[in-house]
Amino acid sequence: MNLEVVMQLIEQKRYPELKQELQNIRPVDIAHILEELNERDTLLVFRLLSKGIAADVFSHLSSEKQAELSTLVDEKELSDILDELFFDDKIDYLEEMPANVVKKILKNTSEMERKLINQFLMYPDYSAGSLMTIEFVDLKKEMLAKDALARIRKIAPDKETIYTCYAIDEERHLEGTVTLKDIVLAGDDVKIENIMQKNPIYVKTHDDQEYVADIFKKYDLLAVPVVDNEKRLVGIITIDDVVDVIEQEATEDFYRMAAVQPSEESYLDTDVFTLARKRIVWLLVLMISATFTGFIIDKYQVALESVVALASFIPMLMNNGGNAGSQASTLIIRGLVLGEIDFKNIFTVIWKEARVALIVGSILSLVNFMRVYLIQGYSLQISLTVSITIVITIMVAEIIGGILPIIAQKLKLDPAMMASPLITTIVDATTLAIYFTLAVWIIGITV
Amino acid sequence: MNLEVVMQLIEQKRYPELKQELQNIRPVDIAHILEELNERDTLLVFRLLSKGIAADVFSHLSSEKQAELSTLVDEKELSDILDELFFDDKIDYLEEMPANVVKKILKNTSEMERKLINQFLMYPDYSAGSLMTIEFVDLKKEMLAKDALARIRKIAPDKETIYTCYAIDEERHLEGTVTLKDIVLAGDDVKIENIMQKNPIYVKTHDDQEYVADIFKKYDLLAVPVVDNEKRLVGIITIDDVVDVIEQEATEDFYRMAAVQPSEESYLDTDVFTLARKRIVWLLVLMISATFTGFIIDKYQVALESVVALASFIPMLMNNGGNAGSQASTLIIRGLVLGEIDFKNIFTVIWKEARVALIVGSILSLVNFMRVYLIQGYSLQISLTVSITIVITIMVAEIIGGILPIIAQKLKLDPAMMASPLITTIVDATTLAIYFTLAVWIIGITV
Repeated sequence: MNLEVVMQLIEQKRYPELKQELQNIRPVDIAHILEELNERDTLLVFRLLSKGIAADVFSHLSSEKQAELSTLVDEKELSDILDELFFDDKIDYLEEMPANVVKKILKNTSEMERKLINQFLMYPDYSAGSLMTIEFVDLKKEMLAKDALARIRKIAPDKETIYTCYAIDEERHLEGTVTLKDIVLAGDDVKIENIMQKNPIYVKTHDDQEYVADIFKKYDLLAVPVVDNEKRLVGIITIDDVVDVIEQEATEDFYRMAAVQPSEESYLDTDVFTLARKRIVWLLVLMISATFTGFIIDKYQVALESVVALASFIPMLMNNGGNAGSQASTLIIRGLVLGEIDFKNIFTVIWKEARVALIVGSILSLVNFMRVYLIQGYSLQISLTVSITIVITIMVAEIIGGILPIIAQKLKLDPAMMASPLITTIVDATTLAIYFTLAVWIIGITV
Repeated sequence: MNLEVVMQLIEQKRYPELKQELQNIRPVDIAHILEELNERDTLLVFRLLSKGIAADVFSHLSSEKQAELSTLVDEKELSDILDELFFDDKIDYLEEMPANVVKKILKNTSEMERKLINQFLMYPDYSAGSLMTIEFVDLKKEMLAKDALARIRKIAPDKETIYTCYAIDEERHLEGTVTLKDIVLAGDDVKIENIMQKNPIYVKTHDDQEYVADIFKKYDLLAVPVVDNEKRLVGIITIDDVVDVIEQEATEDFYRMAAVQPSEESYLDTDVFTLARKRIVWLLVLMISATFTGFIIDKYQVALESVVALASFIPMLMNNGGNAGSQASTLIIRGLVLGEIDFKNIFTVIWKEARVALIVGSILSLVNFMRVYLIQGYSLQISLTVSITIVITIMVAEIIGGILPIIAQKLKLDPAMMASPLITTIVDATTLAIYFTLAVWIIGITV
């Protein structure tokens, strides 16, 4: 709705009204509108924004749009926007820009900030260092509550959060955390070290973002301090960035579980060749692996020749095994990711899956027998072969699906790898081997 | 490590030391320790905790452990713990307890609180109402900043968050939000209505939790106010609960995409029959659907009899199609969930998937041709049949995998349903139909 109003005002060149209208729209919504506009209109709308709002809007744009806008505005405008950005948003921006833009920007920043930026750009992707911001409030632990409050009032406007402050000693070692709530509630002359929470939870710059997210979830934090190897406070991570991490990690797992290599870009922004490249490797691996399943059929070609009807059950049996296996593996993978299951539970999992498989397999088998024998009128031998195969394959599929992710994690592999596609391929071969063995035995085919 | 120390102290009956040790462990970690202890030791450790800490620990226990502990402690102890709990934690607890325990607890609460509890218990599961807490700070909009700060100081200890306060009018209608930061930074005699953010973002009690989570993500919020149908402020939702929702929604999608009915309980806590029940329905549906794939093989039985070698490629072809289809559907489902893709993108998706399929399919087809024709030495006709089938099935699989989730969402179905298992079943039938049609045509079998 906003978008239409804005576009109409642009078209009718009613710029003063447009400027008025923009003041009633939230920055994040303005960013969404800009994504839909062409270059000329983007620049026009962007220049109607006040300086503070412009930076806020800019930080919510996609990196494609940020890049576009960076080439449209002049150097002075760009450096004005960047000055207004929070430090972590600035780093995020610089990481996405082409080298020549970064160079141009760094030329215009002070030596001190340039050094800091370069240091931040060097933290590994997905590390705590790459997530943190430097806009936090640090307080000397000997400070009095009233002086702390005065300091907060003074420096707050530039800080991303003031609700948790960080108490440090002379060498900037992290000593404790103290909430604004505690400072506000404390008497004026109480020392920070007497109201601070000692032994604060912290993460190190090189910790993985998944670990950081786990810490937030476990302790219900709003922000966590980040320290270097000497335990000196260098930054903080706020929960809004962690929410993004949680979403990102889930997306990664969804991709991996579908045998797609993870990617950070959204589907629509990814070009066709990249999309193809992210999928082809696993498809090739799985295709070659599936060849072995073919060998099993080859081996029993004689059996198949004498009872060609056996072939028509192959798709159903393979699907059954694959589906049961991926049900089990998904439950276990998710349990591992959420920390509900670990290696010591492996026997519990096997025992549980075996019983579930017995129930599920028996029902499927029974329904199948009625259909094949009573309705479709196949011979008793064929009906039995197919139905018994179902029980055994469901059993095998659920146990394989249950233990492979746990073993993968133990071997420091990503358990999400052991999802549907790989499990299906493994279970397929087993299913067919069981099927033909039973066929030879029950129907009495001479191989 | 903590667990071992605690267990050792229990065993050696060194209770004073144990009490001392417990003061150095964070409540959430104590909760984790309790989960591992037997009834007697649980009660012992729990009674060594100070009252405030005990409630905090209690709120972090699993609902099984909470139920266990509720039967172990006497009525007085239980009501003391519950008095210390935040209101939303109390509701969560009551929701999980058996009816007789709830009754016993409600008997001991004041009529006003009982009414409030009953009202909260009536909000639908997964609604904003069921997530919200009543421990927030409301301020009359005419208040002065200094009076607001005084009020906050007075009531803060009982509130879950004081960092965002809510400005209301005489009828408790939500008028705006004001952060503690803004109040602290404002002059003493500024009215709240002059520093508050007007037109605040809010949700309604009956909004779905997924919508609430989206609002938090979009606007980077720490808390959101909840209003009733008359726009009167009734509660707030804080981000720590939203983090759980995001995780829960992802888990639901993982389950649905593996054809498992979602469940809130963790795998290890779910009994075998429930696990079986959550899986059997879809397995039955998929097994019956897979029967149609069998019909196709039946139909081409003559072709298969004359060239039995065709059978050995069926598993590989089916897997290829299934894998490619689930890659595409996973990317699209995730894009839909994250709001990156919607119905208007359907043609973009088809065009993109068609091109990706052409690249991926051609590579797979070529590799397969070399293997089958050059290495395994099959006839040119068979090699061509298999290789051409690959390109076409990949094409069909990726387009079906790409559009079905989008159509499902348009039909108000959960797109996650259109994941690997269902796509695989649909693609299988198509794959075999293409395969045998090509076989008849290229190899020249008379059917």
